[in-house]
Amino acid sequence: MTAPYTLILLRHGQSEWNKSNQFTGWVDVRLTDQGKAEAQRGGELLAEKGLHPDIVHTSVLSRAIQTADIALDAADRLWIPVKRSWRLNERHYGALQGKDKAQTLAEFGEEQFMLWRRSFDVPPPELADDAEYSQAHDPRYADIDGDIPRTESLKLVIDRLLPYWHGEIVPDLQAGKTVLVAAHGNSLRALVKHLDGISDDDIAALNIPTGIPLVYHLGEDLQPLGPGEYLDPEAAAAGAAAVANQGK
Amino acid sequence: MTAPYTLILLRHGQSEWNKSNQFTGWVDVRLTDQGKAEAQRGGELLAEKGLHPDIVHTSVLSRAIQTADIALDAADRLWIPVKRSWRLNERHYGALQGKDKAQTLAEFGEEQFMLWRRSFDVPPPELADDAEYSQAHDPRYADIDGDIPRTESLKLVIDRLLPYWHGEIVPDLQAGKTVLVAAHGNSLRALVKHLDGISDDDIAALNIPTGIPLVYHLGEDLQPLGPGEYLDPEAAAAGAAAVANQGK
Repeated sequence: MTAPYTLILLRHGQSEWNKSNQFTGWVDVRLTDQGKAEAQRGGELLAEKGLHPDIVHTSVLSRAIQTADIALDAADRLWIPVKRSWRLNERHYGALQGKDKAQTLAEFGEEQFMLWRRSFDVPPPELADDAEYSQAHDPRYADIDGDIPRTESLKLVIDRLLPYWHGEIVPDLQAGKTVLVAAHGNSLRALVKHLDGISDDDIAALNIPTGIPLVYHLGEDLQPLGPGEYLDPEAAAAGAAAVANQGK
Repeated sequence: MTAPYTLILLRHGQSEWNKSNQFTGWVDVRLTDQGKAEAQRGGELLAEKGLHPDIVHTSVLSRAIQTADIALDAADRLWIPVKRSWRLNERHYGALQGKDKAQTLAEFGEEQFMLWRRSFDVPPPELADDAEYSQAHDPRYADIDGDIPRTESLKLVIDRLLPYWHGEIVPDLQAGKTVLVAAHGNSLRALVKHLDGISDDDIAALNIPTGIPLVYHLGEDLQPLGPGEYLDPEAAAAGAAAVANQGK
């Protein structure tokens, strides 16, 4: 198949811990009713715009999987092939997983807080394997080669995401498939950084809103032919601003 | 991996057309709330009995996919790999698709009605490609080699199911995976006929209840080591009787 290739990114909607303002990372919380409604709306937008995913890639976290299932049901594409990988997971938030965001901000101050949230390569402290919110013994990660992450910076997310991009997603695009990726704030920031060639400094300011499909058309060289387009630009701008203000 | 291999069959719960008593076949109707509750209970039974599917195979019909998603969510296994195939679809009911079962019984008489429903190799009349409930132009079947079915007997279901059994499900079992198959009354009857070596005559009397996991342990030769076991035998017996009386 020849380019342009169509890639659709979809960040999961509100989860239980988005609502309670806790750092989530790899903790497998579910969508709230609002999050489900966001996914439904995302799927309706796909159908309205005539975008028909041929295959969906998700993380192995339930909130992204729920989002894909609800959106695809709304778009009458529940039947398409599915691939899942931990490499599309949210950033592992290390020892911050489970902590209240506002409390963390108050406890450590804005500078340290923003360093953990938005610095490119400073991961939070590691999460101990015996901690309440550790995934060290979660069977879904039993097949990972080597150690599973115990904390991650955005840089580390990019390092583990790109092999999946090149090895699994790109071949589907090159086969002419419209690819939907249902994932998370930071795994999608990592992918957008790669696609748009955003610098390590500038990526800090990029916030991806939840539940609104972001569509890229890519050339043969897998470079975007133009900026990614949100299917509901007004809602996307409002959503991105809300993400930026989390914890405040 | 060595045997025994664990295979779990799950028939989808009540669909909109089960409720309205219409022949469904390949028409892509959704689960009712009762059907969703059945799937939820099916997943809870898996968790209660300590059965952990490592991979799920579904048809490409939404009611089987919904059943798998709900059951796996209830069992906290939403993250396992997924494979889908039209070869696990319900029997194509030909020109009966969309018709009321009681009305069809009254119109054609019990003999013809039971011949269509339970004979081994007599398919209903073919469904025309321009009929309301035809799937001739459904994109989910665009990749089928050759013609898509326009009607099927149970025999024809077995013919198109077995290549998938041998080619896709058996290798997963032989790799040591606990395999969940979420599918339909007739595709699961076809598989059970094959596994249990049921004769063409005796299969007519076999009814598989909805929403109750049916577990087989298979030896190296892929023969069952004993009869398949329903995880809730009392509910299964009642459910099978209800299926047998449909349309009456």
